[in-house]
Amino acid sequence: MASAYPWQADAHSQLLEMMSEFAQFGATDKNGVARLAGSANDGLVRDHLSQWLKAHDFTVSVDSIGNIFGILDLNGGDASRYFFCGSHLDTQPHGGRFDGALGVACACVAGLHIKHGLKERGMDSSSRFYVVACWTGEEGARFQPSLIGSRAFVGNADREESLSVQDRDGVSLKQALSLIGYLGDAEIPTPAHYLELHIEQGKYLEKNSLSMAVVSACWGANKLRIQLTGRSDHTGPTPMVERRDALLAAAKLIVFVKKLTQDQTEPLHSSVARIEVEPNSPNTVAESVQLWVEIRSPNQRVLEQADNAIQAYCKQIKTETGCGLDLLSRELRDVVEFDTRSVEIAEQSLSGAGISFGKMQSIAGHDAVQLQSLCPSTLLFVPSKNGISHSPEEFTSDDDVVTGFDGMMTIMIDLLASSSPALAARSSVS
Amino acid sequence: MASAYPWQADAHSQLLEMMSEFAQFGATDKNGVARLAGSANDGLVRDHLSQWLKAHDFTVSVDSIGNIFGILDLNGGDASRYFFCGSHLDTQPHGGRFDGALGVACACVAGLHIKHGLKERGMDSSSRFYVVACWTGEEGARFQPSLIGSRAFVGNADREESLSVQDRDGVSLKQALSLIGYLGDAEIPTPAHYLELHIEQGKYLEKNSLSMAVVSACWGANKLRIQLTGRSDHTGPTPMVERRDALLAAAKLIVFVKKLTQDQTEPLHSSVARIEVEPNSPNTVAESVQLWVEIRSPNQRVLEQADNAIQAYCKQIKTETGCGLDLLSRELRDVVEFDTRSVEIAEQSLSGAGISFGKMQSIAGHDAVQLQSLCPSTLLFVPSKNGISHSPEEFTSDDDVVTGFDGMMTIMIDLLASSSPALAARSSVS
Repeated sequence: MASAYPWQADAHSQLLEMMSEFAQFGATDKNGVARLAGSANDGLVRDHLSQWLKAHDFTVSVDSIGNIFGILDLNGGDASRYFFCGSHLDTQPHGGRFDGALGVACACVAGLHIKHGLKERGMDSSSRFYVVACWTGEEGARFQPSLIGSRAFVGNADREESLSVQDRDGVSLKQALSLIGYLGDAEIPTPAHYLELHIEQGKYLEKNSLSMAVVSACWGANKLRIQLTGRSDHTGPTPMVERRDALLAAAKLIVFVKKLTQDQTEPLHSSVARIEVEPNSPNTVAESVQLWVEIRSPNQRVLEQADNAIQAYCKQIKTETGCGLDLLSRELRDVVEFDTRSVEIAEQSLSGAGISFGKMQSIAGHDAVQLQSLCPSTLLFVPSKNGISHSPEEFTSDDDVVTGFDGMMTIMIDLLASSSPALAARSSVS
Repeated sequence: MASAYPWQADAHSQLLEMMSEFAQFGATDKNGVARLAGSANDGLVRDHLSQWLKAHDFTVSVDSIGNIFGILDLNGGDASRYFFCGSHLDTQPHGGRFDGALGVACACVAGLHIKHGLKERGMDSSSRFYVVACWTGEEGARFQPSLIGSRAFVGNADREESLSVQDRDGVSLKQALSLIGYLGDAEIPTPAHYLELHIEQGKYLEKNSLSMAVVSACWGANKLRIQLTGRSDHTGPTPMVERRDALLAAAKLIVFVKKLTQDQTEPLHSSVARIEVEPNSPNTVAESVQLWVEIRSPNQRVLEQADNAIQAYCKQIKTETGCGLDLLSRELRDVVEFDTRSVEIAEQSLSGAGISFGKMQSIAGHDAVQLQSLCPSTLLFVPSKNGISHSPEEFTSDDDVVTGFDGMMTIMIDLLASSSPALAARSSVS
């Protein structure tokens, strides 16, 4: 892969064309994309993907949580060996063109050429199925939690429970998927390996002038949904000391959650980015507030300390504001280490291909993190300009896109070779 | 009025019946009412009021900001002398049955009996018109600012500008009024006097076991709409120091606005009760927040100091959070003193009628405060249980309701007598 393969130029133009097509679904001004999970725009881009897959001889299946799978028979053979590659097509409300879409496009175009790639390595009869995976609701923007499709797929969440979550208008994920025609019932085989390429969403690669990263682990996270209960009252005459102001209580908690990270010497990120207020009228003291709080750290102990500190502060807020505080849900995501052998193979592949790379941890969650609990999984990053994502400003250059694709292809072939007992011996991964 | 008038029992039952009818429009569980200005429920209660007025010989007119007027000819005569009495029928999202509705019901029932009342005082040819007024959008819940109908009526705001304000879904007040059939064009004569009975929304009367209050003044207020501008970013990998978190900036401001009142020895109330966040997704740093901030005080200097302190703190937040802060609008409401002579007459009337009362300032704004800038105006309060309002828990007992009505009637007759040169001499207001 260090030198150009005969099909490389084709693959690059197919990839850039596909990225430009995906970006048209839910396009906003300033180059942004708005494709909330299960929305009409999500439906349209899914249709586009499905049609593309069918046109290129993939068998398209949709499972009961709306994940789309395009299955390609790589020279028949052992049905138990499915190599999955993919990402997601949903975005944040003010999202960009690369987050998720790049991984799906790379997986699709890889599917067009994987047979040639294997043949060039003397792996004609690879006895595999290649599967493009497009996971439902990775973003957690409209439906929480995030990674909802991959989480249910690997069995880390109950499917019926996941389908029953509602958006702020009371529409369930099940209803939304049904409306766009992506509530399927296909039974999908267990992957032998999962590979995902994603934008970094940070500045590590850019700062170090590297083309790619092999992700060794993902930070743990703790996601809390907290209910603050005050009392409806007139904002004018009600004496200040008698108010039970749920928005004031929420504001104190938001400030505290930020302060936690400043007081901590070990890596700890925190955020409160969604708030729902009732009745949200300028003249009525807020009666009820829900807050979505998250903390992230590579260190489980730091996460636990932060969680304890938040709980202790919640008690203090109760006393200070007279409001009730209830934990509606807590989602603990452990630190996840990616399969060590696969990380080594990926590093060796990129070295061999002459692609500059680093090894790093991911702070953001990704579908690959869920898949790692089911099968060896590999997550690769390409650079994000200024580290910005979840924004129309999200940007990865064409050069970085195609280099990332080339790196992913060489890793894919080496992973397939390494797990093919007959071929592992003569596969050159150094 | 101290002793029962022949029509008193009728008036009381008519009043309680009308209150119970009004409460059915937009009724929620727990005895609450939800009748946002210009909503379908507001339209239905307005239809009910209009039909009632027509059935009782009032001429119904609607002006260009949707205020409803029921005009009754009190024995013909001088068209320049219009005595207005009323309040509003819109409510907060989680409102109660008394705020506004009680004043409109009292005004209606007073209209049924005012002729008899005047006759009993030897004022057969009072040469007046009696006008029931129902003002648009007093609450400021759906459309800001509050008192939007009375404010435009007295000329304190431009009508077209007031009609153009939009709710959070982008529906203008003009569209909303048009939809429910209450965008009129009637030219309404200037009132000679305005009288309004309202629930106190505080505990002064209850604590002092008084039946009524004559309001001498209304606190000033400063209502600010502040825009905080951050930057969309991933809540995970984005380094904490690089985030521009508009929700964090908003939270700091909310906490500060509360703290202002704790640091102040003079009366000062403050509140932030509405917040709008974009994109309001758990995984995207808040890009944009709007906050509705209000401060209230009987002392103009204290208001100005608080306003300065908020502005100074906004600069500090800019530095601390890197967010932009812009003042989108500032609405300064001066302290308003009610017509002194009318306050004296009201006090004398209630003394004469043997109704226990106090004199107090209003902290909440009322339509009467707007009317005072056009004509002598009188605002009366009846008790609110536990001082609670803007809540389904809002409650005033039947006894307090009918005593309030009796007090209002005797004041109305004395006000009419006092301003009728021919009759003022023999009117007994002591």
